[in-house]
Amino acid sequence: MAGLQVTHLTGIRELSLSDLQQILSTTDQFAEVLQRSVKQVPSLRHLTVLNLFYESSTRTRISFELAARRLSAQVVNFSVAGSSVSKGETLLDTARNLEAMQMDLVVVRHQASGAAHFLAQQLRASVINAGDGINEHPTQALLDAYTLRQFAGSLTGLKVALIGDIRHSRVARSNIFCLGKLGAQVAVCGPPSLIPQAIETLGVTVLPDVVEALRWCDVAYVLRIQRERQQAGYFPSLQEYAAWFGVHERALQQAGKKVPIMHPGPVNRDVELAAVLADSGHSLILQQVKNGVAVRMAVLFLLGQR
Amino acid sequence: MAGLQVTHLTGIRELSLSDLQQILSTTDQFAEVLQRSVKQVPSLRHLTVLNLFYESSTRTRISFELAARRLSAQVVNFSVAGSSVSKGETLLDTARNLEAMQMDLVVVRHQASGAAHFLAQQLRASVINAGDGINEHPTQALLDAYTLRQFAGSLTGLKVALIGDIRHSRVARSNIFCLGKLGAQVAVCGPPSLIPQAIETLGVTVLPDVVEALRWCDVAYVLRIQRERQQAGYFPSLQEYAAWFGVHERALQQAGKKVPIMHPGPVNRDVELAAVLADSGHSLILQQVKNGVAVRMAVLFLLGQR
Amino acid sequence: MAGLQVTHLTGIRELSLSDLQQILSTTDQFAEVLQRSVKQVPSLRHLTVLNLFYESSTRTRISFELAARRLSAQVVNFSVAGSSVSKGETLLDTARNLEAMQMDLVVVRHQASGAAHFLAQQLRASVINAGDGINEHPTQALLDAYTLRQFAGSLTGLKVALIGDIRHSRVARSNIFCLGKLGAQVAVCGPPSLIPQAIETLGVTVLPDVVEALRWCDVAYVLRIQRERQQAGYFPSLQEYAAWFGVHERALQQAGKKVPIMHPGPVNRDVELAAVLADSGHSLILQQVKNGVAVRMAVLFLLGQR
Repeated sequence: MAGLQVTHLTGIRELSLSDLQQILSTTDQFAEVLQRSVKQVPSLRHLTVLNLFYESSTRTRISFELAARRLSAQVVNFSVAGSSVSKGETLLDTARNLEAMQMDLVVVRHQASGAAHFLAQQLRASVINAGDGINEHPTQALLDAYTLRQFAGSLTGLKVALIGDIRHSRVARSNIFCLGKLGAQVAVCGPPSLIPQAIETLGVTVLPDVVEALRWCDVAYVLRIQRERQQAGYFPSLQEYAAWFGVHERALQQAGKKVPIMHPGPVNRDVELAAVLADSGHSLILQQVKNGVAVRMAVLFLLGQR
Repeated sequence: MAGLQVTHLTGIRELSLSDLQQILSTTDQFAEVLQRSVKQVPSLRHLTVLNLFYESSTRTRISFELAARRLSAQVVNFSVAGSSVSKGETLLDTARNLEAMQMDLVVVRHQASGAAHFLAQQLRASVINAGDGINEHPTQALLDAYTLRQFAGSLTGLKVALIGDIRHSRVARSNIFCLGKLGAQVAVCGPPSLIPQAIETLGVTVLPDVVEALRWCDVAYVLRIQRERQQAGYFPSLQEYAAWFGVHERALQQAGKKVPIMHPGPVNRDVELAAVLADSGHSLILQQVKNGVAVRMAVLFLLGQR
Repeated sequence: MAGLQVTHLTGIRELSLSDLQQILSTTDQFAEVLQRSVKQVPSLRHLTVLNLFYESSTRTRISFELAARRLSAQVVNFSVAGSSVSKGETLLDTARNLEAMQMDLVVVRHQASGAAHFLAQQLRASVINAGDGINEHPTQALLDAYTLRQFAGSLTGLKVALIGDIRHSRVARSNIFCLGKLGAQVAVCGPPSLIPQAIETLGVTVLPDVVEALRWCDVAYVLRIQRERQQAGYFPSLQEYAAWFGVHERALQQAGKKVPIMHPGPVNRDVELAAVLADSGHSLILQQVKNGVAVRMAVLFLLGQR
């Protein structure tokens, strides 16, 4: 195994196709480990992983924590509440101080786009972006790609529709980069106010109508709608958003088919996605969550090799 | 060892006498482990335990965490603060998502009565109720029974008075079921507003007067009074509650004896229980806490065998 | 190795010179462990360490947690948020209850001066003071002494200036005791309102002027200024504090030399210390943080021997 060309995972955009493929094939190995009775390997027992979370999170933090522990790494969790951050310390000071305690890998989630890049420039530890503002959430896109490959065999030519708030979604951005590199076709669909101008330059098609998007795609990837976007005037009400851009049974009926559904979670039930579809046999959502641990084990393992 | 008949521990009510006795005898083994220099056994090193706590808790969460780690299980702590719950995710979605990360045992505390039953129906993981609303807190009753057996040798015919807010106490309910199954006699005592109607149908006696209850019992089990009950009008003031239904030296003098004191903690000193009694040689409170770890090791171990 | 004379580390004041020197020489051994690929030793695998933190903290809690885990101890973290403390439990009840779950070492941070002494009198576990009010923060002073010794070879006759809010600083107090025992010369410098009366009785010199203090010292130890002291009237504004008592390049120019800078963190950049100095080659701050883990390993190890 050659190791990755990058020493940090700040985004999918910076990742070569071969690094991307190496992460996915390494994930296969760890997915196999997770099927064993004892789901732990000693690979990273010499390393310490810092989870540096400036935004609240359930599944991402726990997924990274489990991934690290199943590699036998030491894990230190740092969340904003009850920390020196309330004493006004800068991100860089916090990170440098924690790094001085000999952290090898720093997993960071932060509300500012670019936070992970910034730390990657400043720290000697390997930085893994667990979501930075509206920029990227690369391990989400990796677990999505892994789930899609598991479902469809190959991503080449696979049609994926990203539906919802494209403008503010780091998940959408990372998926657009990732799916593009892996040869999938990507369309985006949502209210015009939530589609960035010139998004086509990223190689995606804009489909303004949900039914049309569902008709076109092989897989529908539904994005979480942030309730605070309504206050900001991006759409008039959650009810109208659900009626016009939600993915529900009527839309599928109009499209004339059933499609597999993905979602990064947590789902606003019956807003962007009908509860009945989220729980149906066509939902890949829990498979995404399950694969998240294996993908993150692969990323931590590969970055821990240097 | 045959294993338990149940696959979840949702309440004492659902537990057969043989399951109950098996838990208590398995606790003996783990209590012995906890006397060793190295208090850890490898029994559950292949399992992952999720602590899913929707209500704040000190000793119960830490007790479960220590129990799991002393069995060498992986432990994931999830508390409401700083989680997706603030993003409006349902209990079921949170639990299913975390279960998808391959949790084997889910310890849940929730403000809604029935929450543990609900999850037990929905999840493949084994669910352990760490307190659900005003329904049950089964591991508390198990550690209480273990402590009583340790103290008295046998529970058969032992007279236990539960004193305080019976109406809102999941501890009282679980103890009534548990003590009843193990052959103890149970009386309840408290302000009439805090004694449920028809409580006698659960096989207990109502004793309206604390002195009478103390005179009758072999052990006094004092319940924590929630300060918010006063606002709701269940009693006029903490001072009056303490005077009339608190367990203090004057009440014991009037009863003409000393009785062993139990309490589920945390104690409101000099409200439901005199501080001097809580700290006296007749208090079994710290022994209860100590036994809690061994009892929870037994429960996790037995449910982890399937 | 004879073990320490004390069974608790409540403060430097109570520590004999030989205990102090034993901690520093044991730190050498653990600093060597932390240079290895696998930074873990099995020394305390039979012990459980409780981190009992009543004040928010980043580096101190994580430093103790890492130290304990690198000694293979079990670690239980208890922070005030989401705990029974919100239910009004006393410090002693919380500590006794957690101790009943068989904690061997209790690391406590508390806003009340004397909290650690109080627990040391009441608990059978060994108590380590991680900061109590304005009394002491002994492991900070130990890591500072270790860092100074690393830097200067010996502390005998070394001139250390403590600059800032001496009155409210447990770090200053512990350092005054520690540096004095180890033979260093100590001066304190700060606004008169923040210098305790009769501080000279502790064996230190008062230097009212920062430039003079910088001229005198071999090492400048800058203390964190609490913003809330301004509201209390101890100084007129942060700007004026920074101008008159901050350590910045102009002050160093006036002193006519460069001095090594220490700070307990987190730094208020450009208030008590110029950002450019905090990040310069003369800053020992990150070395302090790094040494903190080794010093705490030494303290936990030595107190864990009894």
